[in-house]
Amino acid sequence: MAHRPLIAPSILSADFARLGEEIQVVAGQGDTRADWVHVDVMDAHFVPNLTLGLPVVQSLLKVTDLPLDCHLMIENPDRWAIGYAEAGAYNVTVHAEAAKDPVKIAKDLRAAGAKAGLSIKPGTPLEDHLEVLKHYDTLLVMSVEPGFGGQSFIADVLGKVRAARRLVDTGHLNVLVEIDGGINAETIEQAAEAGVDCFVAGSAVYGAADPGKAVAALRDLAAQAQH
Amino acid sequence: MAHRPLIAPSILSADFARLGEEIQVVAGQGDTRADWVHVDVMDAHFVPNLTLGLPVVQSLLKVTDLPLDCHLMIENPDRWAIGYAEAGAYNVTVHAEAAKDPVKIAKDLRAAGAKAGLSIKPGTPLEDHLEVLKHYDTLLVMSVEPGFGGQSFIADVLGKVRAARRLVDTGHLNVLVEIDGGINAETIEQAAEAGVDCFVAGSAVYGAADPGKAVAALRDLAAQAQH
Repeated sequence: MAHRPLIAPSILSADFARLGEEIQVVAGQGDTRADWVHVDVMDAHFVPNLTLGLPVVQSLLKVTDLPLDCHLMIENPDRWAIGYAEAGAYNVTVHAEAAKDPVKIAKDLRAAGAKAGLSIKPGTPLEDHLEVLKHYDTLLVMSVEPGFGGQSFIADVLGKVRAARRLVDTGHLNVLVEIDGGINAETIEQAAEAGVDCFVAGSAVYGAADPGKAVAALRDLAAQAQH
Repeated sequence: MAHRPLIAPSILSADFARLGEEIQVVAGQGDTRADWVHVDVMDAHFVPNLTLGLPVVQSLLKVTDLPLDCHLMIENPDRWAIGYAEAGAYNVTVHAEAAKDPVKIAKDLRAAGAKAGLSIKPGTPLEDHLEVLKHYDTLLVMSVEPGFGGQSFIADVLGKVRAARRLVDTGHLNVLVEIDGGINAETIEQAAEAGVDCFVAGSAVYGAADPGKAVAALRDLAAQAQH
């Protein structure tokens, strides 16, 4: 890996009554500053939960300069993903299991100025989506079943992380490898060893007494495990 | 009408980055205090927009003692409505066009301690749902097509308001009549004359320089138009 680990706190574990402030808590200076803010968009159809959508993302974009990493756990991303890119999200991730024309989605997202992300659920094979991934900037490997925060890490998915890492390091794929689900001080090192570049962390950040310090501590752990 | 008009500001027009504060703005004392806070839940399936869901409502319930009026513009309310009642919403409204077993929904909502609301879109006839409405506490007449804030009032729906008012005043129905869509200082009087009890107002409240004063002014206009 060429860069320091990226930490993306997930506001799924934050206080929805004051999201702007909750983002400010991880927007400090130096090591306590998050790299991205992960936004979990759920539609009660692709996953059994309804969280927040574009109007909320638009409000958040007005109050932070941190890059928003929008994870669309929704059906029909072919219709909806572009709106998040046009609004100004930094990275827009759709699910491989939901996308009808993922290559077109990636092209449209990039044309709108966003990075394009493709996510796979724990049971979805990586190899089924390798061709499509050539059009994407990020690969988000889910390490829990998407839908809710606070779940336990599924270590089995690290096989997919290792496979993706090899493909990236050998020049066969050009994506940033991101992981989401159950990442905390106990699990981040094995994910970093397997080759993850960007770590989504929800309760491990927002459940901490000092979320900024938690960001710094998680990044340290990941950086040490990489070497 | 036996009671003073109720004003329910809709947070669809508020700043989603600081919803707790936005609710506080209409939670003052006296006439500037909202009666209910209207929460627009949209799932990108029943309507072409995705706003917010139960996790956000749960956060809001922790920061306000104003009654939350949750308007579920979602598919399959048979599955999801009960969660809002169990969380502590004051009134939970489902759409007649989406509910598979609206009588069961109403019974479940009431058993969970909430008021049960039934909403009809502008094109949905009232008479198709009169039997079901006997199980409900509120009737929400949509005066715009649901999905977005800031739309213009559809005066045609006032015929349904008048019909519902007559049924209530003659003892054939026992619901509070609520209206949602395009309600502002220009339209609230005709709605009040037609017999509305509770007025949802989004941009007319949150777009005002002083949202609390806007609540008081709207309630005054409605009260004068009733007599």
